[in-house]
Amino acid sequence: MAFLFNSPDAAREAVFRARLTAAFPDLPFLTARDDVAPEAVRFIFTWAPLPDWGRFPNLEAVFSVSAGVDQFAGLPREIPLIRMQDPMNTRRVVEYVTTSVLACLRDLPVLARCQRERNWAPDRARLIADTSVGILGLGAIGLEAARMLSGLGFRVAGWALSPGAEDGVARHTGAEGLDTLLAASDIVVCLLPLTPATEGILNADLFARMRPGASLVHAGRGRHCVDADLAAALSSGRLRSAVIDVFDVEPLPADDARWDLPNCLVTPHVAGRIAPETAVENVAENLARHARGLPLLWQVDRDRGY
Amino acid sequence: MAFLFNSPDAAREAVFRARLTAAFPDLPFLTARDDVAPEAVRFIFTWAPLPDWGRFPNLEAVFSVSAGVDQFAGLPREIPLIRMQDPMNTRRVVEYVTTSVLACLRDLPVLARCQRERNWAPDRARLIADTSVGILGLGAIGLEAARMLSGLGFRVAGWALSPGAEDGVARHTGAEGLDTLLAASDIVVCLLPLTPATEGILNADLFARMRPGASLVHAGRGRHCVDADLAAALSSGRLRSAVIDVFDVEPLPADDARWDLPNCLVTPHVAGRIAPETAVENVAENLARHARGLPLLWQVDRDRGY
Repeated sequence: MAFLFNSPDAAREAVFRARLTAAFPDLPFLTARDDVAPEAVRFIFTWAPLPDWGRFPNLEAVFSVSAGVDQFAGLPREIPLIRMQDPMNTRRVVEYVTTSVLACLRDLPVLARCQRERNWAPDRARLIADTSVGILGLGAIGLEAARMLSGLGFRVAGWALSPGAEDGVARHTGAEGLDTLLAASDIVVCLLPLTPATEGILNADLFARMRPGASLVHAGRGRHCVDADLAAALSSGRLRSAVIDVFDVEPLPADDARWDLPNCLVTPHVAGRIAPETAVENVAENLARHARGLPLLWQVDRDRGY
Repeated sequence: MAFLFNSPDAAREAVFRARLTAAFPDLPFLTARDDVAPEAVRFIFTWAPLPDWGRFPNLEAVFSVSAGVDQFAGLPREIPLIRMQDPMNTRRVVEYVTTSVLACLRDLPVLARCQRERNWAPDRARLIADTSVGILGLGAIGLEAARMLSGLGFRVAGWALSPGAEDGVARHTGAEGLDTLLAASDIVVCLLPLTPATEGILNADLFARMRPGASLVHAGRGRHCVDADLAAALSSGRLRSAVIDVFDVEPLPADDARWDLPNCLVTPHVAGRIAPETAVENVAENLARHARGLPLLWQVDRDRGY
């Protein structure tokens, strides 16, 4: 029996190896460089889905390197899949979202274009207290982003795929709830999981239901967004501006037209990053629970896909 | 006796006229369009200094449209000069500073350049909790910016021209205090008043005392900054990035080289803007105090220049 660490990041590997071999001396720590006997592998830590999950007949759980788990659709459904819930990563994404929302508030995507055009633009700033933010996706990251933005004085509401508990954030659900949220938001933030239900959700139809001149911050997944529709909404002025961190192809190739999305800041998928020192605790705690026969934490509901 | 409103903004004029003529029916409200008898003018509200203050023998106070009052150096020193203390403007500048500090935290000036170059850049983000901000200038705006940034989790300290009262913000003064602050700050924010002592303070010598790779947010006055020194510090990488809102010439001409300052967001003097509805209260309160023989509020100390 063994733990397979399937990630090319050497610094991350060192942290995981030290922590896990100390806590679980009887669980060999293997990497892709080792001569792995597939039947020995009980746990896999990986970002990329493996081409043939069936190779590992004794697999007991898969730990995702990322908070999003859409890439694991091919994993047999009886294998528990654990999403990454790293408090440092959550913090990092929340700070990215807050930065991007403020950038839209102060019109930085437009002002960056004006700077390039050497055009001293008129002031379009508004105040935080007069601005509503709508957050699509109220998981751990969405909820914490809502709290930071509320703390600054924004009016904040959210839209979630499932009803969920009372958590201090006004929560809309369903198609009607989405319409309500979009109509009330000056800045819309996408933090949804990618599922068949949310793929392509950021499309012309949704943009048409946003407030004229509203802004979009997108730190979900590339395939949430129909980029041609986004380009059209930005070009027409229907959307004032956007800050986009994710694309269906990353890195974005140098000849990709999306680098030139108008009034849009393109950031190179920097909203989040797993911090190995805190991320390893997600794995260690679950391995300890598993050894004691307790249910695993942060397990993905394979039906809903997140 | 009369109040001379010397500002070309019609919307602002309408607000001031309505509020002041209602509160002070015996004080005629004049504008530059009126046939003004100089000896009747007791109060002037203006951004621009007048070419000949001596024309107004009965002038009792000058109200600045702006929080900065450096443009009034030629006003006879016996005429009380009132700086603008508009809570809405304060709020606006504080939100600009917070936006710009977060933009530096998340490397947006660098990422905007990389976007222009179609270059998927490596992630250089750091966390708020690991970041120190140093604020130059602890007036009403500097103090409130310090509070908002502290509230987000930044470590914040300030440097002030004068010792000042205890106000919850670590306050450095003097040349040594400036060195201490610069050496401890990842992001330096300039909110100083412009005086002979602060003109050109943002120069090569100061940049050399900042942390290597630190960032600058400048929302003071254009003449605080030696822009050639700033360009050199950004080009060499001594400074990682900057967000600059003020210039010695505004609007910046289309052929000005400063539009292309490397790793720098240039914003078109949008940090603050007077809100007439709240700004007029500054004037109304002082006119009422004056009528009752009370000392005027927000009066500039002409010796120190702010």
